[in-house]
Amino acid sequence: MKYASLLDVIREKNPLIHNITNYVTVNDCANAILAIGGSPVMADDINEVEDIVSLSSALIINIGTLNQRTIDSMIKAGKKANELKKPVVLDPVGAGASTLRNNAVKEILSQVKIDVLRGNLSEISFIAGLRASTRGVDSAVEDEKKNPVDVGKIVAKKYSCIVGITGKEDIITDGVNVVKIYNGNKFLSKVTGTGCMASALVASFCGVTEDYFLATVVGIATMGIAGDIAFERAGKVGTGSFHVGIIDAISKMDSNVFLERVKLDEVKY
Amino acid sequence: MKYASLLDVIREKNPLIHNITNYVTVNDCANAILAIGGSPVMADDINEVEDIVSLSSALIINIGTLNQRTIDSMIKAGKKANELKKPVVLDPVGAGASTLRNNAVKEILSQVKIDVLRGNLSEISFIAGLRASTRGVDSAVEDEKKNPVDVGKIVAKKYSCIVGITGKEDIITDGVNVVKIYNGNKFLSKVTGTGCMASALVASFCGVTEDYFLATVVGIATMGIAGDIAFERAGKVGTGSFHVGIIDAISKMDSNVFLERVKLDEVKY
Amino acid sequence: MKYASLLDVIREKNPLIHNITNYVTVNDCANAILAIGGSPVMADDINEVEDIVSLSSALIINIGTLNQRTIDSMIKAGKKANELKKPVVLDPVGAGASTLRNNAVKEILSQVKIDVLRGNLSEISFIAGLRASTRGVDSAVEDEKKNPVDVGKIVAKKYSCIVGITGKEDIITDGVNVVKIYNGNKFLSKVTGTGCMASALVASFCGVTEDYFLATVVGIATMGIAGDIAFERAGKVGTGSFHVGIIDAISKMDSNVFLERVKLDEVKY
Repeated sequence: MKYASLLDVIREKNPLIHNITNYVTVNDCANAILAIGGSPVMADDINEVEDIVSLSSALIINIGTLNQRTIDSMIKAGKKANELKKPVVLDPVGAGASTLRNNAVKEILSQVKIDVLRGNLSEISFIAGLRASTRGVDSAVEDEKKNPVDVGKIVAKKYSCIVGITGKEDIITDGVNVVKIYNGNKFLSKVTGTGCMASALVASFCGVTEDYFLATVVGIATMGIAGDIAFERAGKVGTGSFHVGIIDAISKMDSNVFLERVKLDEVKY
Repeated sequence: MKYASLLDVIREKNPLIHNITNYVTVNDCANAILAIGGSPVMADDINEVEDIVSLSSALIINIGTLNQRTIDSMIKAGKKANELKKPVVLDPVGAGASTLRNNAVKEILSQVKIDVLRGNLSEISFIAGLRASTRGVDSAVEDEKKNPVDVGKIVAKKYSCIVGITGKEDIITDGVNVVKIYNGNKFLSKVTGTGCMASALVASFCGVTEDYFLATVVGIATMGIAGDIAFERAGKVGTGSFHVGIIDAISKMDSNVFLERVKLDEVKY
Repeated sequence: MKYASLLDVIREKNPLIHNITNYVTVNDCANAILAIGGSPVMADDINEVEDIVSLSSALIINIGTLNQRTIDSMIKAGKKANELKKPVVLDPVGAGASTLRNNAVKEILSQVKIDVLRGNLSEISFIAGLRASTRGVDSAVEDEKKNPVDVGKIVAKKYSCIVGITGKEDIITDGVNVVKIYNGNKFLSKVTGTGCMASALVASFCGVTEDYFLATVVGIATMGIAGDIAFERAGKVGTGSFHVGIIDAISKMDSNVFLERVKLDEVKY
């Protein structure tokens, strides 16, 4: 299976992944990247992001606790990654919740070519609505919001990127092709940072293949599978042990575990 | 019991809690809020705190790793919360330890109406002493420091707020009524952030009731009970497992566990 | 054994340790300091670092997620610690990876007397090369890089400090005397922050003895032993449980555990 082999590749290549991320879940993102076989580097000062991007195999921009200082760093890092043809993943945490966040997302998307957008339905719907709000078709988009596949396709086409929408079912699309993933469980929403970790895993896999669609599927599926394993072990104990169990499961993931556990469909339309 | 029912209410209402907090314990605060049934949002940029407060049911301001940028955000967010009549909890971490912290606390208390102050005896004593230092009654306050109930009452009356002082015994007072809580154990002081988590839980409960006295009692008692449960499970293993056990216990807390475990007195004077 | 007794001393003295550190591993550093018997305080605003240094028994400067604001704070805090004759530990995270980092390390080393430098071989080699790059002896230093003891001695002599290089074998030197530690395992590189925690432990021990060589040996050995204990318990489970196990092991460490577990040589040259 083309998906599973990426799990062995990453442990062999050990890609360096540059994170400009939030201070809430940064430790989990770093540990998730280490657990899957990458090496994380967190650096957000505008005077060093270009140097760090240059050393790295992929860049993940996560706006969870953005501020003006870090927004500027995100854009500078993203432009440098574009210039060097390194993949850029954007996690638009909380897009739609504040004018600052909304403007930051617009600014990043207008100045940086994003290769993968990973968010929840609300965040990606907001980004789909960027077009709407400037073209006066809010209501149409409101309808489309009901179907994650449609929302994902709109955004994937608009920004020529891969879109990963995580939720009860996860949707990955490039605007034409669609993969649905059924792994994961509701405990994942009871621990902060599981979305951020999914994005960090996606970026890690983007660091070892040029097929970013494949990387996004594998990254999101890895997170879902880790959630399933952690739930079996710790669901009855509580969310603290579940949290620890997620990292444990990622650190023990390989192509065999992946193949045995993954539940996905390549959807035809 | 009026206290216990709040644990069921919060899981039903799932309040959004806005945290402007420190980068040391922020992950634990977010996970504690999720574990008890709320939804955390961490946002500290001055250009978005008003938007985020507007979406939220309560605001918690924690000065653990304050800097000039975030102090301004705290005040702006606090004023907005006051305007919208949303509860504001202040955790004056380290008050008394530096001029910056002392001035920040004074500034926040002078510009923002605080509904609940949650700290340790040293921090709350410092705030009690604000009056002393400007009125020249240091020695009197020094004596009062010996009795947390008296310190709490001074501060509660001065700022017309609920005061929660955590320690060997926890004291909650509105200046007249007093509740003492006997849950918790000394392991809680061996893990960073247990005070911050207590404040985050208080803010979470303030998000679902207008009785902030009740919310403060339940928030602090929940933390103490979680500490008791975690200690039984992990006290012999070490503070890492104890830390995980706290979140586990919060995530499994409900009105039954609370009723079975809580040790409190409504003290008459 | 002179080393082991320090573990009992620290639990008795409970030193306050001032950390100016990164937002990735700060929670682990705080919990490691608590676990070994110290009290952590994290404060990085330039307007309060002098106050906090004055209260503390040691200062640890960690440049993991430095920015211009915090670099200035590091230097101000370091100068104050020098003035008050309090020990300063520097963890030059990522030295060599960006111009910002390199300049910051140079600036800190030129303005602050550092008592202990704790890093990996790559970071300490970069610092050894500071001399080289200004004196044109890069190739010579390149050769020396092959031997951690030589790299450590160069840096220890140049800056009149203790150098601790962690790796497969850990090297501690004052430029003349050398101790090698054989505790620890490769899982320690699969969890972020184990180096930062080692530095935080070194700073903690520096807070209770004027023999910083001794403190560095005990701090680094404590981390290695904790890694060994955690690996025995959780190596098969995964890196999440290993991470928790490190803190557990530090919290249960005492002179007996240390004596039973430590593997070190005082090397004669």
